[in-house]
Amino acid sequence: METQTMQTSPSTQIVNVGGYQIGGSQFTVIAGPCSIESYDQFLETAKGVKASGAHLLRGGIWKMRTSSKAFQGLGNSSFDFIKAVCKETGMSLVSEVTDARQIEEVYDVVECFQVGSRNMHNYSLLKELGMQKKPVMLKRGFAALIEEWVKAAEYITNGGNPNVILCERGIRTFETATRNTLDLNAVVYAKKNTNLPVIVDPSHAVGIRALVPSLAYAAAAAGADGVIVEVHPRPAEALSDGMQALTLEDFSTMMKRLEKILDAVERPLHKEIANVR
Amino acid sequence: METQTMQTSPSTQIVNVGGYQIGGSQFTVIAGPCSIESYDQFLETAKGVKASGAHLLRGGIWKMRTSSKAFQGLGNSSFDFIKAVCKETGMSLVSEVTDARQIEEVYDVVECFQVGSRNMHNYSLLKELGMQKKPVMLKRGFAALIEEWVKAAEYITNGGNPNVILCERGIRTFETATRNTLDLNAVVYAKKNTNLPVIVDPSHAVGIRALVPSLAYAAAAAGADGVIVEVHPRPAEALSDGMQALTLEDFSTMMKRLEKILDAVERPLHKEIANVR
Amino acid sequence: METQTMQTSPSTQIVNVGGYQIGGSQFTVIAGPCSIESYDQFLETAKGVKASGAHLLRGGIWKMRTSSKAFQGLGNSSFDFIKAVCKETGMSLVSEVTDARQIEEVYDVVECFQVGSRNMHNYSLLKELGMQKKPVMLKRGFAALIEEWVKAAEYITNGGNPNVILCERGIRTFETATRNTLDLNAVVYAKKNTNLPVIVDPSHAVGIRALVPSLAYAAAAAGADGVIVEVHPRPAEALSDGMQALTLEDFSTMMKRLEKILDAVERPLHKEIANVR
Amino acid sequence: METQTMQTSPSTQIVNVGGYQIGGSQFTVIAGPCSIESYDQFLETAKGVKASGAHLLRGGIWKMRTSSKAFQGLGNSSFDFIKAVCKETGMSLVSEVTDARQIEEVYDVVECFQVGSRNMHNYSLLKELGMQKKPVMLKRGFAALIEEWVKAAEYITNGGNPNVILCERGIRTFETATRNTLDLNAVVYAKKNTNLPVIVDPSHAVGIRALVPSLAYAAAAAGADGVIVEVHPRPAEALSDGMQALTLEDFSTMMKRLEKILDAVERPLHKEIANVR
Repeated sequence: METQTMQTSPSTQIVNVGGYQIGGSQFTVIAGPCSIESYDQFLETAKGVKASGAHLLRGGIWKMRTSSKAFQGLGNSSFDFIKAVCKETGMSLVSEVTDARQIEEVYDVVECFQVGSRNMHNYSLLKELGMQKKPVMLKRGFAALIEEWVKAAEYITNGGNPNVILCERGIRTFETATRNTLDLNAVVYAKKNTNLPVIVDPSHAVGIRALVPSLAYAAAAAGADGVIVEVHPRPAEALSDGMQALTLEDFSTMMKRLEKILDAVERPLHKEIANVR
Repeated sequence: METQTMQTSPSTQIVNVGGYQIGGSQFTVIAGPCSIESYDQFLETAKGVKASGAHLLRGGIWKMRTSSKAFQGLGNSSFDFIKAVCKETGMSLVSEVTDARQIEEVYDVVECFQVGSRNMHNYSLLKELGMQKKPVMLKRGFAALIEEWVKAAEYITNGGNPNVILCERGIRTFETATRNTLDLNAVVYAKKNTNLPVIVDPSHAVGIRALVPSLAYAAAAAGADGVIVEVHPRPAEALSDGMQALTLEDFSTMMKRLEKILDAVERPLHKEIANVR
Repeated sequence: METQTMQTSPSTQIVNVGGYQIGGSQFTVIAGPCSIESYDQFLETAKGVKASGAHLLRGGIWKMRTSSKAFQGLGNSSFDFIKAVCKETGMSLVSEVTDARQIEEVYDVVECFQVGSRNMHNYSLLKELGMQKKPVMLKRGFAALIEEWVKAAEYITNGGNPNVILCERGIRTFETATRNTLDLNAVVYAKKNTNLPVIVDPSHAVGIRALVPSLAYAAAAAGADGVIVEVHPRPAEALSDGMQALTLEDFSTMMKRLEKILDAVERPLHKEIANVR
Repeated sequence: METQTMQTSPSTQIVNVGGYQIGGSQFTVIAGPCSIESYDQFLETAKGVKASGAHLLRGGIWKMRTSSKAFQGLGNSSFDFIKAVCKETGMSLVSEVTDARQIEEVYDVVECFQVGSRNMHNYSLLKELGMQKKPVMLKRGFAALIEEWVKAAEYITNGGNPNVILCERGIRTFETATRNTLDLNAVVYAKKNTNLPVIVDPSHAVGIRALVPSLAYAAAAAGADGVIVEVHPRPAEALSDGMQALTLEDFSTMMKRLEKILDAVERPLHKEIANVR
């Protein structure tokens, strides 16, 4: 009978994003707005999350929206100011590509490509990402079996790009009180049965600001390799997903408690990149 | 905009079971076999889990089994030896009643009645439990909305019994790699929106021994008031649910790590009952 | 490779309810209100549905309600007038028992016991019904696997009562536009893989009056052995489930179209009982 | 209180594919193999289904496969022989595009573009199809809400292409005995609440050959505008989805019974295209 190694274990495949070893002995925090809305909004958020200890930035350039009339993202008009923000803060960006044709376009802006939940089964896109040199964060489809998620990752790794980070972001179930259902079973299952880093997106998984931090703590205690969290300086003004964005203050509070839990499980937060490089 | 109090908060309704305040400032661990199989098996398990710090015993007397041909529990032939084990170890038993007619029968044996997942909607049973003096642990139906779970609890509390503990034990989703899907969203949601204690059953929620401890850690970090865990001295010989039972050694290892996490979130394990009474 | 017999086939286990052979070469229609609310309401409904060709009556005496504050049914105060309505119309009643203790109480009032969806896993109740002489209509749990549904039926048949009718009434899925999701796959699967009659409850399955008839037609065309449909003279006044009840006029219109489809699949409606007995 | 028009009603938006008015007063049958595997296989299937009364051909050129190692379709090497088969049989092809870049490539081969279930949320692809002159059959995502399905259709119609056919092909639920769960609720709901034609794919919805015809009958009786069915001359040899393909003989038997049901609901099969053009 097999018994779990009770210590959280690093992945055998470690993925370097912007100088941070995701899946290694330290824990990674990716934070930022749902959508990148303006230079000011993005810079304020980036500085704020960095001050609280975030390692990498998130932020949508092209958004996947259920309605064709909803805000679709700034697209390429934002490239210049995004680069400026990354330079100014010394942080790298993880951002979604929604179409294979965007990969080349955004190559210099993004340090890690994200595949969104609704594109996990978009095998054309995955094949294209398998030919890139930059890492890919593959979100689990909201109704994808763990097995399908792992096989989707193989579209990328078999294509020649081993640098895949799995991201659980909640699945669709019968429950409606929360936006999705965070599936931590899948996180611990994937950690045990694959060699890839696994991170958690508690923001989409629950969709309710006040509940996001508790689920980030749970992810850390369960042995995830990191979290990706939505933060907005003024969530009420956000162009998308404002209900689930933490304020900068919420984020700061969360990071302090997260740090204690991570210390308890001997999986500390990464030090600032200055010390890492 | 409402922001979460980042500290784990006690329930306003605290439920006393066997001398332990469930939902108070300390964390409760309930452990034991899926089915009570014999005096020897139950005593060995009880002593073992107590030695590692468990507070209360679990163990099925009448089992809800999908097949009418599967082991249905020892029933009333086990009452005498169960009482002997409780006396010998100084521990109290949480156990399921599957029919209103069993309540009176088992009243002296059980300190807290459990309503199983498949009976959460059995309103006849709930009404009967509303008229009892002993506390009730109400497992969430495996396909019950959080709202239905809370309303099921009201069948008991409205009947005059305020001592209800909610227990999340995994929901049924499309995923098949794990037995159920642990819904920690529901735990943090119920903690925030009800005044009842909420505990987690990671054993049924994932159904795979090696993954149980990680989910117990997650529950603790997320702010649950306790866990209920299946433990068997020799899981391979268990008459039910052997795949998900921890060995006594697994349990001991889990408790050590759990304690560290609980200390980090300032929600320590209860001290032994000797110190409490 | 196995190919389906394209003709709809009778069950090998035929269940007699009130003179009608359910699962035989003819199709059975059970109709009536969600709750039996009064003598007048029940009589008006019974006469109305009989005039349009219904064979058996449905109507709740004890209701399973999510909230303890919702109408719980008239209970035993209605027994006398129910018997009067059955006598006056020459129809028999299919009605739910929600607790083993009700079986004896209601024995003379009900011709076929119904187990509701939320009680499908109530094995105490199923065992008790296995010892009865009257037939049982077993609704599928709203989150029960087909296999669990069939095994629940075995609790009854193994107990000595072979007269079980399976009833599909919709399952719980992620979809929220309809009350449940009618699973006709399960109907054709159960028809093929069990020897029991299988009927369909389109009213609970979709929960929207205007869509009920189309799903009844679908059930008939797919090879179900019958349908059970909610009808209320004035749905807006119904004490439960008014949204999904057909008016008497709707029901009459539905029956005419249903008859044509049944003729096309060579599975005609039962003739009136007068001709059958 | 609104009551359903009991007669099946045509869509207000009628979509012409290869001379057949989909969504009009007649019923459309699309049939063919899962994957187009060779000239011989495709020609034999096309001739066979035409002989039994099918109106349009289906057949995959690029396949969406969970595993990167599974057969991915013949791609552009098949274009010439596909055109030959269409010409020889006088039938038009409905086939999936899995990437916006394929639209132009396959434009002359395909009469109606199909968006597969796993691409329903691929808004880049939908926007591109909104700019085309040819019709689009939009399969419902296997975990998409009806509302999301309708909004996905609007990505196409708002882009300027009004010719969208909705196709329900089964959703993912907890049930595992069947491949998916056919959601006829969604079909009748979409028929009532949109102006688009709605067809049903019983093959993917159930995944078991022997059960496919019964579900096609159900779709017809419920008021769907057509069905799309997988047929293979020798299913055991199929490179994909052989378990659910009908043989030519099965298909022929199904069509005869389907015709009777359609006559009963006054929604006859289209006449052969020779009579239509």
